[in-house]
Amino acid sequence: MKKEKLLMTPGPTMVPPAVLMAGGEPMIHHRTPEYSQLFRELNKNLKTIFQTQNPVLTFPAAGTGGLEAAVVNFFSPGDRVLCTSIGVFGDRVATIAKAFGLNVEKLTVPLGEAVDPRIIEEKLKEQNYKGVFVTHNETSTGAYNDIEAIGKITKNKDILLIVDAVSSLGGLDLKTDEWGVDVVITASQKALMAPPGLTFLSVSNKGWEAAQNSTSPKFYWDVIKARKAMEKPSPQNPYTPAVSLLRSVNKALELIIEEGLQEVFHRHSQLAKATRAAVEALGLKLFAAPQARSNVITSIKMPEGIDGEKVKKQMAEKYGVITAGGQEDLKGKILRIGHMGYVHEGDIIQTIAALEKALIDVGYPIEKAVGIKAALEVFN
Amino acid sequence: MKKEKLLMTPGPTMVPPAVLMAGGEPMIHHRTPEYSQLFRELNKNLKTIFQTQNPVLTFPAAGTGGLEAAVVNFFSPGDRVLCTSIGVFGDRVATIAKAFGLNVEKLTVPLGEAVDPRIIEEKLKEQNYKGVFVTHNETSTGAYNDIEAIGKITKNKDILLIVDAVSSLGGLDLKTDEWGVDVVITASQKALMAPPGLTFLSVSNKGWEAAQNSTSPKFYWDVIKARKAMEKPSPQNPYTPAVSLLRSVNKALELIIEEGLQEVFHRHSQLAKATRAAVEALGLKLFAAPQARSNVITSIKMPEGIDGEKVKKQMAEKYGVITAGGQEDLKGKILRIGHMGYVHEGDIIQTIAALEKALIDVGYPIEKAVGIKAALEVFN
Repeated sequence: MKKEKLLMTPGPTMVPPAVLMAGGEPMIHHRTPEYSQLFRELNKNLKTIFQTQNPVLTFPAAGTGGLEAAVVNFFSPGDRVLCTSIGVFGDRVATIAKAFGLNVEKLTVPLGEAVDPRIIEEKLKEQNYKGVFVTHNETSTGAYNDIEAIGKITKNKDILLIVDAVSSLGGLDLKTDEWGVDVVITASQKALMAPPGLTFLSVSNKGWEAAQNSTSPKFYWDVIKARKAMEKPSPQNPYTPAVSLLRSVNKALELIIEEGLQEVFHRHSQLAKATRAAVEALGLKLFAAPQARSNVITSIKMPEGIDGEKVKKQMAEKYGVITAGGQEDLKGKILRIGHMGYVHEGDIIQTIAALEKALIDVGYPIEKAVGIKAALEVFN
Repeated sequence: MKKEKLLMTPGPTMVPPAVLMAGGEPMIHHRTPEYSQLFRELNKNLKTIFQTQNPVLTFPAAGTGGLEAAVVNFFSPGDRVLCTSIGVFGDRVATIAKAFGLNVEKLTVPLGEAVDPRIIEEKLKEQNYKGVFVTHNETSTGAYNDIEAIGKITKNKDILLIVDAVSSLGGLDLKTDEWGVDVVITASQKALMAPPGLTFLSVSNKGWEAAQNSTSPKFYWDVIKARKAMEKPSPQNPYTPAVSLLRSVNKALELIIEEGLQEVFHRHSQLAKATRAAVEALGLKLFAAPQARSNVITSIKMPEGIDGEKVKKQMAEKYGVITAGGQEDLKGKILRIGHMGYVHEGDIIQTIAALEKALIDVGYPIEKAVGIKAALEVFN
């Protein structure tokens, strides 16, 4: 008998048993009072997690679908938008925006860094943009952006702030309303610790106004239609909702709310501190810039001559801990440990133990348990 | 303790316990050998069920997303297409095609009827179309189209035959390759008896050629990108796949293949015959035209003065059997009993019993067990 592998990736993440079981209940039809009750609860819980009074829409899709929905619902072909990119997912949003004919100006920073809000401020002085796209947490590098600071710049301007929070929501604090974020996109399989297949968007009043004026072709992602169905006395969806996933997510949100949002953020902060402490105690370098290090994922620079792919493979196959390697240009150069969602102290200890063993296996000399000791000191 | 309600709707349909449980297994990451193995099996099983050698693509989305994918991948704005409509879902495809700027000619037939293939043949002589959209099974009316006959007309022409098989595939025979269907779209929650949230498209060589030339804006639904990822040595998806739903569908397909496709079609035919026999024995009329009656759903005309919504409500709330009412213009006028997927003789008997009791409750005089007797005679 083999133990289940530990899923320390930046999504899909581990799903609590109660969440898995909620998805396994007998099917119900989506035009019944039972479903409306579920959907009503989900919508309420989503608002809590999104820290918003705005409606939060649910689409059966991967998070990338949510990003596409943000592009086609709030903008029209030719609209000038500023797409900030701090990695793969920022690049993806820019590509989607271009695919739908938006006039994209891209603002790219060196990998591992966050966007300097002052640069956004200057850009907005130079040009009129209809929207700014920002990745909250960039899983490809382990860096995150300061949404609060960016929100201060855009809040009272005639511009939409669109935040890709696919890998952050429920792990990093994101005060949607307070910080003035117009559209927040997330997905079910990251810090929300449910199976993949659902994406969610919150939309501010400014966002709804923009949606009324958007001429981009759309049907499936139409947020106005989704909102109308959702605001019926018995809330519904325009098309068949992914009932079992909705149940799973609803259960997961209940668990998060039960723990308390602030407690959940604190737990993620502790997981990150412990992971970073372990990595540095092992003599390795963190990839993300000091001020930009995310609490939901830690990216580790591989030392000269050590192939990150080998370390990853060794950790997975020999020690049962699944992590992620570098993507695109970073392949082999970094190792990424996700610590978002259903992750606790014991998982970090186990992961660091596997990392230590794998490093020794690939010929990198470290002293065993040095990383674990550093991690434990954070938790104590 | 209450018994679970019987889900006799045209989707989501009842999910076999083994399929629910497959979706509840611990999460795995989608860039692992375990996932590639699952995806490889799924792709193989999908080909069997689709009766095709063509690649079958999987997207996390409702079936409507699959319809949108068919519009944006194989056509360009301005392309002339013939959208046949025999009900709500045919209308929907036409609306999607218009939303993406296609030049839509709509061919509508009276509700309850199928499209006469000869009319399609004539239309194609009058005009050059790039594609014909046909609904295989129209759940809103209980009628189905003769895809084989339509395929004979389009097969050797420079035109794509696109079939919405969302509610039929796995219940009605659809010989994709033999009948020359270029694109078949289906979804997980109908005859495939899995939870909703996945849509699937098979694409012929003619379809792939058209995809190369399509200029419609697209990103999430891009079939070329999906195919490339799928045909890697370790099959993948461009974006995070809905792992738990994939597992459920794969399990469901295994069950269908184990029973045998022909046996599954025969079972559906028997379920339909029994339901129709019961309905007629009760003195009620079937809504769909005799030649167009589908084997996956039976639509029943409500007698003068009987409100279908009341019958539906009574069956659901008092007798625990969930059916569907009429949509749009047919609201209150028909009752629809889905018998697709995980449905067997006992479910039909239970449904007819509930129908009989509900009819009596709402004041329609019938003799008890007359419908059940007629149904049993079909099964014997």
